[in-house]
Amino acid sequence: MSRQVYLDYAATTFTAPEVVSAMTPYFTQSFGNPSSIYSFSENNRKAMAAARQQTADVLGAAKEEIFFTSGGTEADNWALKGVAWRNRSKGNHIITTKIEHHAVLHTAQFLQENGFEVTFLDVDAEGRVRLEDLEKAVTDKTILVSVMFANNEIGTIQPVAEIGAFCREKGIIFHTDAVQAVAHVPIDVKAMNIDLLSLSAHKFYGPKGVGALYVRKGIKIDNFMHGGGQERGKRATTENVAGIVGLGAAIELAASRMQEASSRVGKLRNMLIDGVMNVIPHAKLNGAPVGERLPNNSNFSFIGIEGETLLLDLDGAGIYASTGSACSSGSLDPSHVLMAIGLSHEQAHGSLRMTLGEETSEEDIRYVLSVLPGIVERRRAMSPLWEDFLKNTQGGK
Amino acid sequence: MSRQVYLDYAATTFTAPEVVSAMTPYFTQSFGNPSSIYSFSENNRKAMAAARQQTADVLGAAKEEIFFTSGGTEADNWALKGVAWRNRSKGNHIITTKIEHHAVLHTAQFLQENGFEVTFLDVDAEGRVRLEDLEKAVTDKTILVSVMFANNEIGTIQPVAEIGAFCREKGIIFHTDAVQAVAHVPIDVKAMNIDLLSLSAHKFYGPKGVGALYVRKGIKIDNFMHGGGQERGKRATTENVAGIVGLGAAIELAASRMQEASSRVGKLRNMLIDGVMNVIPHAKLNGAPVGERLPNNSNFSFIGIEGETLLLDLDGAGIYASTGSACSSGSLDPSHVLMAIGLSHEQAHGSLRMTLGEETSEEDIRYVLSVLPGIVERRRAMSPLWEDFLKNTQGGK
Repeated sequence: MSRQVYLDYAATTFTAPEVVSAMTPYFTQSFGNPSSIYSFSENNRKAMAAARQQTADVLGAAKEEIFFTSGGTEADNWALKGVAWRNRSKGNHIITTKIEHHAVLHTAQFLQENGFEVTFLDVDAEGRVRLEDLEKAVTDKTILVSVMFANNEIGTIQPVAEIGAFCREKGIIFHTDAVQAVAHVPIDVKAMNIDLLSLSAHKFYGPKGVGALYVRKGIKIDNFMHGGGQERGKRATTENVAGIVGLGAAIELAASRMQEASSRVGKLRNMLIDGVMNVIPHAKLNGAPVGERLPNNSNFSFIGIEGETLLLDLDGAGIYASTGSACSSGSLDPSHVLMAIGLSHEQAHGSLRMTLGEETSEEDIRYVLSVLPGIVERRRAMSPLWEDFLKNTQGGK
Repeated sequence: MSRQVYLDYAATTFTAPEVVSAMTPYFTQSFGNPSSIYSFSENNRKAMAAARQQTADVLGAAKEEIFFTSGGTEADNWALKGVAWRNRSKGNHIITTKIEHHAVLHTAQFLQENGFEVTFLDVDAEGRVRLEDLEKAVTDKTILVSVMFANNEIGTIQPVAEIGAFCREKGIIFHTDAVQAVAHVPIDVKAMNIDLLSLSAHKFYGPKGVGALYVRKGIKIDNFMHGGGQERGKRATTENVAGIVGLGAAIELAASRMQEASSRVGKLRNMLIDGVMNVIPHAKLNGAPVGERLPNNSNFSFIGIEGETLLLDLDGAGIYASTGSACSSGSLDPSHVLMAIGLSHEQAHGSLRMTLGEETSEEDIRYVLSVLPGIVERRRAMSPLWEDFLKNTQGGK
């Protein structure tokens, strides 16, 4: 099988050739340490300033509010731990949700083990946080609310502006993990009252290993990486100049293409959803309806099937996708996100995420729709789970 | 002035062209997320395993003992905080030195603010830790000793094997920040009884933004970056595949060239030291004698001069070097390393570090020796400090 269809853009994207070109001079030619005062590093300092401006522009921020990191995970770690350490004297209560990325969830759990109380909010069946739950959870000890902008598994977009307005009114710091959202949907940190925002370059055609944390002017957080005085004393380590330049080039490029790309990819994604839902019996679309989820995200459950088996069959057909089933995550439990929206273990184990991007074509989607239903049918035919399901529901449609 | 002589290899190196070539396919072609189970990411997983083996081989470690990070600073943060959090119940005392890199020093200070006691050992006039000082500092609460392998400013190589043997005997975890030493001098973590070792790719012709922490099998440390299950559950974040491949290619290349490069660069460095000491009156060589310092390191003090002025004059002549003077570090105080070896403020402010590397030629050194004495002479002629010094010493030689 020589056809390859990559449908895992939410896991990572290729680095755009334009971005690689922008990065290249910073490996072998303009390689000086930006902290050095000589003229040889001047170009590097300018390139980093430009990347900071490019990043700020896309978020509606000022460039002094952008701090580069090694990725979204570091940005999330820094945001949560930085706020927590800094505000210990004010309070020890943090609110987040049950569907955050592990970079937030596990950091919150670390803080729980270190004297903080964390409320993990439930979400509705489509993956949305309810504002009334947030309002009820707030106490006079609450120092931080962290709610992701859009979910990485099911694509549900949260009511970020409403949460931001609420937190600002209450004087609570609001962080959003926007790793899946930046340069995919419009974001305005000012209008949305966002205090801290995490992003990662390799989700929008930039390189892996570089990200950023937006920190609103006036918000004080403790350092996470201790050491030298880089990033205006807030984040130590010799700057990854090539990576930072790549982030800047990528975010500008992706943002400039965003509207057109969302529209194009959204149509293909809708075609995929319609095709799957119309053809595969008892398919379930996980997450919010089209329009309230990331334009490139689709997530299904096919009862009676193991996600890993499905991935391997798709792999054999040259299709690369993702599942919320257990083994793929390296743990024994299926996706915490799928469980949080109320799926049964069986549904979560039979889940398939397909996320589209720059190189996805209509032909790709037709190909997937020509292959996937057969795989599901064959695997169900071998599945005792499916047999039980049919018995209990008096057959499929 | 079109001649350019880069003498700041200890600050950062260019990325070797062979290394860039090794990295390139991982940006646009083999870009899959290594955590994904499909075949498309298989090549990435293999490339990371190869880089891990390359790194382990150079250190005399096993590949399961290598964990990739975003650089030396993260490796240092992880080592200190990871040991501290993990061993809180055993003890709260940490021993390090006054000449560590800020990545260790500031992390140690953070731990001081969080319930740990830290002893900062003095060093001798050449920058060496005395074993008897270490022995005296140990208490029954000591959980960690962190002593750098070789100093970044003055190049002094520490008695690492002796410290390692001592710590092992006492059952105390021993970490060494070997950022300046790896692939520059021979290291054998087993023979030297090293438990944890930090390294950074951009110090040996690899890319910026990637490093590693060696963690000896059996040593348990807490996580620093919380999130996904990457690096066998020890360090979260999507792997910087291109950077990791670059680190592997760079460490293998640099190690294979090490003996020849050390010899070649060492001769040029000795020529530089001899030239400076013979020609510039009242020049002082800071650090240990040749043979007990990194082969590429030279560090001088020229009394009566401001390091920044010197750097700018050298910059004007196309020579790029470094100083332990105040402003260049972004703080008001001169280098903590130069102060720890007993230099006066004036000597520290008048310091110049020149570190050599792959592209340094004999012609470069001759050029520096033709330019530097004149600059020192001119700047001293304008300096009231120099006038005072001459008065007090009845003139130079």
